[in-house]
Amino acid sequence: MRRVPGEIRRRSEAAIFAYGEARRAWGRWGDDDEKGTLNHLTPERRVAAAAMIRTGQVFPLGLPLKSGVGPQNGMMGRFNPIHVMTHTGNESAGLPLGGGAEPTDDMLIMPTQGSTQWDALCHMYYGDMLYNGVPAASVSVHGAAKNGIDKVHGDFVGRGILLDVARWHGLEILPADRSISADDLDAVAAAEGVEVRPGDIVLIRTGAMTVVDGDDWSRFGTTAAGLDYRTAEWFERHRVAAVAADTLAVEGPSPLPGVASPLHMVMIRDMGMHLGELWWLEDLADDCADDGVYEFFLAAQALRIVGGAGSPVNPVAVK
Amino acid sequence: MRRVPGEIRRRSEAAIFAYGEARRAWGRWGDDDEKGTLNHLTPERRVAAAAMIRTGQVFPLGLPLKSGVGPQNGMMGRFNPIHVMTHTGNESAGLPLGGGAEPTDDMLIMPTQGSTQWDALCHMYYGDMLYNGVPAASVSVHGAAKNGIDKVHGDFVGRGILLDVARWHGLEILPADRSISADDLDAVAAAEGVEVRPGDIVLIRTGAMTVVDGDDWSRFGTTAAGLDYRTAEWFERHRVAAVAADTLAVEGPSPLPGVASPLHMVMIRDMGMHLGELWWLEDLADDCADDGVYEFFLAAQALRIVGGAGSPVNPVAVK
Amino acid sequence: MRRVPGEIRRRSEAAIFAYGEARRAWGRWGDDDEKGTLNHLTPERRVAAAAMIRTGQVFPLGLPLKSGVGPQNGMMGRFNPIHVMTHTGNESAGLPLGGGAEPTDDMLIMPTQGSTQWDALCHMYYGDMLYNGVPAASVSVHGAAKNGIDKVHGDFVGRGILLDVARWHGLEILPADRSISADDLDAVAAAEGVEVRPGDIVLIRTGAMTVVDGDDWSRFGTTAAGLDYRTAEWFERHRVAAVAADTLAVEGPSPLPGVASPLHMVMIRDMGMHLGELWWLEDLADDCADDGVYEFFLAAQALRIVGGAGSPVNPVAVK
Amino acid sequence: MRRVPGEIRRRSEAAIFAYGEARRAWGRWGDDDEKGTLNHLTPERRVAAAAMIRTGQVFPLGLPLKSGVGPQNGMMGRFNPIHVMTHTGNESAGLPLGGGAEPTDDMLIMPTQGSTQWDALCHMYYGDMLYNGVPAASVSVHGAAKNGIDKVHGDFVGRGILLDVARWHGLEILPADRSISADDLDAVAAAEGVEVRPGDIVLIRTGAMTVVDGDDWSRFGTTAAGLDYRTAEWFERHRVAAVAADTLAVEGPSPLPGVASPLHMVMIRDMGMHLGELWWLEDLADDCADDGVYEFFLAAQALRIVGGAGSPVNPVAVK
Repeated sequence: MRRVPGEIRRRSEAAIFAYGEARRAWGRWGDDDEKGTLNHLTPERRVAAAAMIRTGQVFPLGLPLKSGVGPQNGMMGRFNPIHVMTHTGNESAGLPLGGGAEPTDDMLIMPTQGSTQWDALCHMYYGDMLYNGVPAASVSVHGAAKNGIDKVHGDFVGRGILLDVARWHGLEILPADRSISADDLDAVAAAEGVEVRPGDIVLIRTGAMTVVDGDDWSRFGTTAAGLDYRTAEWFERHRVAAVAADTLAVEGPSPLPGVASPLHMVMIRDMGMHLGELWWLEDLADDCADDGVYEFFLAAQALRIVGGAGSPVNPVAVK
Repeated sequence: MRRVPGEIRRRSEAAIFAYGEARRAWGRWGDDDEKGTLNHLTPERRVAAAAMIRTGQVFPLGLPLKSGVGPQNGMMGRFNPIHVMTHTGNESAGLPLGGGAEPTDDMLIMPTQGSTQWDALCHMYYGDMLYNGVPAASVSVHGAAKNGIDKVHGDFVGRGILLDVARWHGLEILPADRSISADDLDAVAAAEGVEVRPGDIVLIRTGAMTVVDGDDWSRFGTTAAGLDYRTAEWFERHRVAAVAADTLAVEGPSPLPGVASPLHMVMIRDMGMHLGELWWLEDLADDCADDGVYEFFLAAQALRIVGGAGSPVNPVAVK
Repeated sequence: MRRVPGEIRRRSEAAIFAYGEARRAWGRWGDDDEKGTLNHLTPERRVAAAAMIRTGQVFPLGLPLKSGVGPQNGMMGRFNPIHVMTHTGNESAGLPLGGGAEPTDDMLIMPTQGSTQWDALCHMYYGDMLYNGVPAASVSVHGAAKNGIDKVHGDFVGRGILLDVARWHGLEILPADRSISADDLDAVAAAEGVEVRPGDIVLIRTGAMTVVDGDDWSRFGTTAAGLDYRTAEWFERHRVAAVAADTLAVEGPSPLPGVASPLHMVMIRDMGMHLGELWWLEDLADDCADDGVYEFFLAAQALRIVGGAGSPVNPVAVK
Repeated sequence: MRRVPGEIRRRSEAAIFAYGEARRAWGRWGDDDEKGTLNHLTPERRVAAAAMIRTGQVFPLGLPLKSGVGPQNGMMGRFNPIHVMTHTGNESAGLPLGGGAEPTDDMLIMPTQGSTQWDALCHMYYGDMLYNGVPAASVSVHGAAKNGIDKVHGDFVGRGILLDVARWHGLEILPADRSISADDLDAVAAAEGVEVRPGDIVLIRTGAMTVVDGDDWSRFGTTAAGLDYRTAEWFERHRVAAVAADTLAVEGPSPLPGVASPLHMVMIRDMGMHLGELWWLEDLADDCADDGVYEFFLAAQALRIVGGAGSPVNPVAVK
């Protein structure tokens, strides 16, 4: 980030602090709440979501986990998944199974945010506080005592809708400096004929992954188009449960010089909204464009990582 | 395993080879098929499964992934999950985010079979062949060229039923030497009033996890009650899509001296049936006993591990 | 540790704080020093140490690094080394090397303290300060900014002596409640006819590893005999460069109720002395008993782990 | 590698097979030998090597192990070291140590060849055989049954000499297409006034690491200058114990079209010579140029990785 003069930075910070305060949902679902906007995703809405399953087609939204392949470039010490075979089909495991039976086996080493994932509510803080006023220091090397992904691992099941912003613009991929506004979201939903309902999980497509060529991620941008932080109000108003996108960060270029991640700040920490990143939306988007149906049942449960700041996930959209 | 005289072992092997051949489904769904009995789980059956969602309650079936905690004891070089925080709430990550914003982050190191998981069809072989006649040598250090978990990662979505064998016996936990027969399965289903339908994912509860005390897994058995291998015919006849249990191996003590894993041999390699192991069924089972409803919508998609011999999973049953 | 009444604990703390202050070497080698007592190991003393090489016999002092095998039991989230082959001799790596040439390859996953190792000077603190008054907070998820093992990785080269306390007592292994005093050290050295010289690295043998049976570490004690903390004065007086032992912690049972690791506190943080733990001393000790020579050249350089709190090491004694 | 016509490749293979056979030392040190040319490094020669220690200066030759930093680019699934703090100075580890004492702790994840290392004798094979006629298949997922690094982990201690080829050429760095011949080695040794003696460990400097700029390895070549395979005869004649260089592969561009690694093939598999790769020679080389002394005591013991195909190492040269 370019160096920003102090006065301008202070103005940016004042803006985001005020905006965050206006969105702050702390206490809304109780002082001990660790689910945030997932509270919108009630059992009744899950029952309604079941009606989205009309043809039984499944669209998996997880990227391949393949050793050394993916979007990570070392930022924050992250790396692409490492998958290692510990028993292959070429040699005996030495177990006395009899009958010539032999197993194969393997292991996985990866950052929880190394590929398609969910951010936990403990993943971002400012003012030394997490969502619902939890002290940031409660996220220690022992994991997150509160707001970890294990507090919601089974909650990401409900109605999903896709807002294909790139396609609405008639573009393969949105330019990296493109910010998506609340008006854009309304326009895309209208064009798609899809209604945003309380408890929805909203998927935003920027086309960012169209530049990935097989295992070659070199053209995939670490900066990318994405949501303007002021869409937070739109998500709040629609009582959206969670949001995910096909980019590293969901949010686009910040309009606030000196504040790089205003949407993370407000959505995760103030509103209590989980962000899904690096979701593979290409197959689903093609199908939605084909049949004109942009709503579906979504199962995107996280791994139950105790105190996890995030989790790898392989979401499935069922139409 | 105790040493078994050669003659007896040969008789056991002859028995399992003959039984496996009778169940063998190679070519049934095409010479290139890598999905096996998941082919029973058709889009139509997924649509029907949606009707199982009646109250919107979600029951996650994955064990907690917590550093150093779990059922692994070193067998096959496996270990319990290792979860490490790479950024905590106590110190700056050094990113110029502005506004006092700071991320937390973490990573995961685990065997794909270290906790609640799916066996891929490449996970077990005999006669140097995998399901559908694929050479075992195709599972190399590069991963499984065929029958990897990435070939079915999004398929585990459909109707699930729970056969709570322990409860039917009126036991907390089945004794470790208890083998579950096809007749048992029929009796449990009848007692529960649940119908086994084509394309179902069947969950078998032995109560094995009732001995786990918080983080203390020392009483959890590496040998445990489970399915007799001859239930394979029952699963075949009912056109079951996949089976999972609350034990390390799904199968119980082998009735064939000298052949330790006959069910793995026949189900995975001959029938092409995925096995789910170490599933947490306690909460779901309690609820089923309460409301008498033993059927549900099940979403148990695997991570998309390219060439993976298995995958961690956090399945959710939605009732 | 048993609960200790507050008054007794306060008395223990007062004792260790006073003792630590008396030993404190902060500033002795400069305000920026990060080597501590390794400063005693001067180039001249390394030249003198070379004279210890008389027969050219090498005694490696590192434990085998073997997957899942070793002394770790989960304390502090530590685990035994994980060694995984990534290319074996059974299949091609797919590199176009020609001539039928193929590589094998592997990887290692381990806590720096998972086996034979050095504690860095940043490994233990109290009063929120590390050796030489460095703030403890400088050891962040980015590693230790100061006092990391990378500041001394090449320094552990000089004269070593073995004080075989177990053998002197005529015991296979010292009882776990046995504390080794300064008088004991003098008596052992006298009995062995070995002189303690400035700059020496002193190895203490308790016989703790005599209970290890092949890969079976179950009888190896997490509590063990070891140095009384008040030997710190002895090490200080003799200008010892570093100390290592065949136990998990070098130090024995604490004589101060409520303070478990007084020797770590004083030696690492106040004196600036590196501790080596889990060293394999059996072969060396047998040879010293045979030839009566308890001095040798020692090369025990650490891996150059940037900001590391410790390092695995395979020390070699050359006689 | 460019595609090479079959006839030319066959000629190359015939050449390397004949050359390898002429160098083959199988059985020379016994049918069960797993040390190869390290047998030249006798106890007597270690005693003689001690005389190299004249000033007591230590030159560590290991690269920094720093998360995500280093020469690896994904080839063979290798990655740069991953170093993670598991306990920092910012929070309590939760151990009841008393006195405010707290530990810091960390872990390391790395390919054995991820940084400065030794190749084990099991690291390269052709004709399905390792050094001394051991079947390649004996290197399984369980590790190398024979010729693993654990068979020699303490042997790399003796006299070292530096042949600074780059400096002799008056170059910062040898061009990547430069092959070093036996005549070059003789000329460099003569110019340096250093004698090559039986049992020596010979270090070859190409200047490859002079292009590394702090943490930026992007200019470091995966192809680099290095030894011509026919120098094997020179190493054999001089009874050299082992050889190491400042490059990824020790060997330079192959003069045999279609055979990429002839030196690895002959030295490791036929002669039984360990290769050290990615050694940091800059500080040592500067000092040798200053004082004109190119010989030293070298301690480069490997970690004792059971069945390891290689090992990280932090060698020290003591002058």
